Amino acid sequence: MLIAVDAMGGDNAPHEVCQGAAIACKNFPDLEIALVGKDSLVKQHVEGLDPGVAKRLHVVHADDVIGMEESPVVSIRKKKDSSLRVAMEMVHSKEAQGCVSCGNTGAIVAGGVLVIGRIPGIERPGLGMPLPALNRTSMLIDVGATVRAKPENLFQFALMGQIYMRHIFGVKEPEIALLSNGEEEIKGDEVVMAARELIRGANLNFKGYVEGKDIPFGTADLVVCDGFTGNVLLKFMEGFGEAVYALLKEEMGNRLLPKMGMVFMLPMIKELWTRFDYERYGGTPLLGVNGAVIKAHGRSKSTAVANAIRVAHDFVEKRGVELIREELLEGGKL
Amino acid sequence: MLIAVDAMGGDNAPHEVCQGAAIACKNFPDLEIALVGKDSLVKQHVEGLDPGVAKRLHVVHADDVIGMEESPVVSIRKKKDSSLRVAMEMVHSKEAQGCVSCGNTGAIVAGGVLVIGRIPGIERPGLGMPLPALNRTSMLIDVGATVRAKPENLFQFALMGQIYMRHIFGVKEPEIALLSNGEEEIKGDEVVMAARELIRGANLNFKGYVEGKDIPFGTADLVVCDGFTGNVLLKFMEGFGEAVYALLKEEMGNRLLPKMGMVFMLPMIKELWTRFDYERYGGTPLLGVNGAVIKAHGRSKSTAVANAIRVAHDFVEKRGVELIREELLEGGKL
Repeated sequence: MLIAVDAMGGDNAPHEVCQGAAIACKNFPDLEIALVGKDSLVKQHVEGLDPGVAKRLHVVHADDVIGMEESPVVSIRKKKDSSLRVAMEMVHSKEAQGCVSCGNTGAIVAGGVLVIGRIPGIERPGLGMPLPALNRTSMLIDVGATVRAKPENLFQFALMGQIYMRHIFGVKEPEIALLSNGEEEIKGDEVVMAARELIRGANLNFKGYVEGKDIPFGTADLVVCDGFTGNVLLKFMEGFGEAVYALLKEEMGNRLLPKMGMVFMLPMIKELWTRFDYERYGGTPLLGVNGAVIKAHGRSKSTAVANAIRVAHDFVEKRGVELIREELLEGGKL
Repeated sequence: MLIAVDAMGGDNAPHEVCQGAAIACKNFPDLEIALVGKDSLVKQHVEGLDPGVAKRLHVVHADDVIGMEESPVVSIRKKKDSSLRVAMEMVHSKEAQGCVSCGNTGAIVAGGVLVIGRIPGIERPGLGMPLPALNRTSMLIDVGATVRAKPENLFQFALMGQIYMRHIFGVKEPEIALLSNGEEEIKGDEVVMAARELIRGANLNFKGYVEGKDIPFGTADLVVCDGFTGNVLLKFMEGFGEAVYALLKEEMGNRLLPKMGMVFMLPMIKELWTRFDYERYGGTPLLGVNGAVIKAHGRSKSTAVANAIRVAHDFVEKRGVELIREELLEGGKL
């Protein structure tokens, strides 16, 4: 299996990305990786690696880079020799089975649609983010691919997300919920209400609306929302974790007793941290495009990159794209 | 000053509501409170109180109650003798200067619009929630009054919110931000983009877009969003706090060392809790209606109720409604 990795995308590229690729190769003996980027920069990170790993890391030169702040559609169209675009061309031509990038989210989505192409019948792709919650891992879809979704888009997110949860996460009959501003049927705007009726009519394990407060408890396997709301929520979670950490550090600096207490609590805090650390999932699949496209966080270090490549590996191995196409398109659900 | 309190609204009514009213009366010698509800239930909570307080607590009988799950518009229209509606009628007739309820949020908003009435020129009201953040108290508006807002609504939330932050919170030139799915100008949907241009043109201290991750850091004094997004965020915060608490409790139950550590950390944790406990603000003003309407959390206990009454007292004393009317309407901004 060949996965194309955008070696230049993200805040810690190319160093951490290449290291992550090496870790992934070590973990999966069937994996070959195309490291796409400036070969002068990328090659040095491959040299000196264990030969069994290095021979499966292929440097594919791409001269250009799409920056984190660039306009997604413009950059993916114009920068034909950018590492992200070249990686995606490899998926489009079936040379690679999937691709991974820590780069510009908008450009990844635009490239998924414009370079790789959508699965016929899917109008808009959705980014599905697995979230750690109290009772289970719950996937939030969409976290930013489709800013404002139409009812049909939300419906398709539900269809694709449940296939992902079933086959990739192994959840038998995924419980699906729609995020709204209250649990009662009178809540939601017109779009959310119309989406609810579409999902309800599709013979899924649909439990209706959930509220924001249900998300941390993991009240459903799949929570559907538009990309605006999902993005705001996801980033809020990130910021909240950072703010609490900053506050704890500040408070701990000023006090002696809490420091002593901390020593006793460390093992527990470590376990809690692991339980709520969403980076261990490492990758967010872009569902609805004709290939395994996995987006990793812009600040990913090698472990997170390796995890994102694992997600891509899993997605390809379990035939994620084919299953979505078969079940939805051939099953007449689109 | 007379504040009408919906004695029957919320999960802990009438007991905790009446207790909260008594605390508020103790704190503010100029305060008189109309406790609106079934007199057979309310009166017993006033009896036995300190006479100096009891004489300022006036029981106003209302035979009906609007439940938490009832349809807002239908219930406020039909239940003319409900405690919430009667409290709002008192504000409409200027008998009371403001009202406080822990009841059905939708009914409070509907009552604000239909019974008390909007400030002329204000199209939709906004619920403004003061949030504890790392660097300052930041107000999020709207958290659920106007599910999907038009650009003009978001603009008016910004105008009303900055007046509130200036006069009630004493912030000189409140920094205003618009919540979006990214900081760059290309982010946001059409509504958010149009709102950005309206706010930008209004000679305010406007810093443009903020993302979800900026909220816990308090990067602005006022963060504007539609009621759907604000509601999802607010409830997520609530749920997240509860989930972490449940998890800590479970983990602590299984371990001895963390328990010992906890003893050392208690003072710090208490301080952190106070800093992030949004209930200490106690009340969410409904901005844009012709009277001081304060919504308190449905689960409010006496302290939170007393805080909500304090917010109403402050709002009336500082002429919040009049200032919004004068600055916006007479200032030609609407």
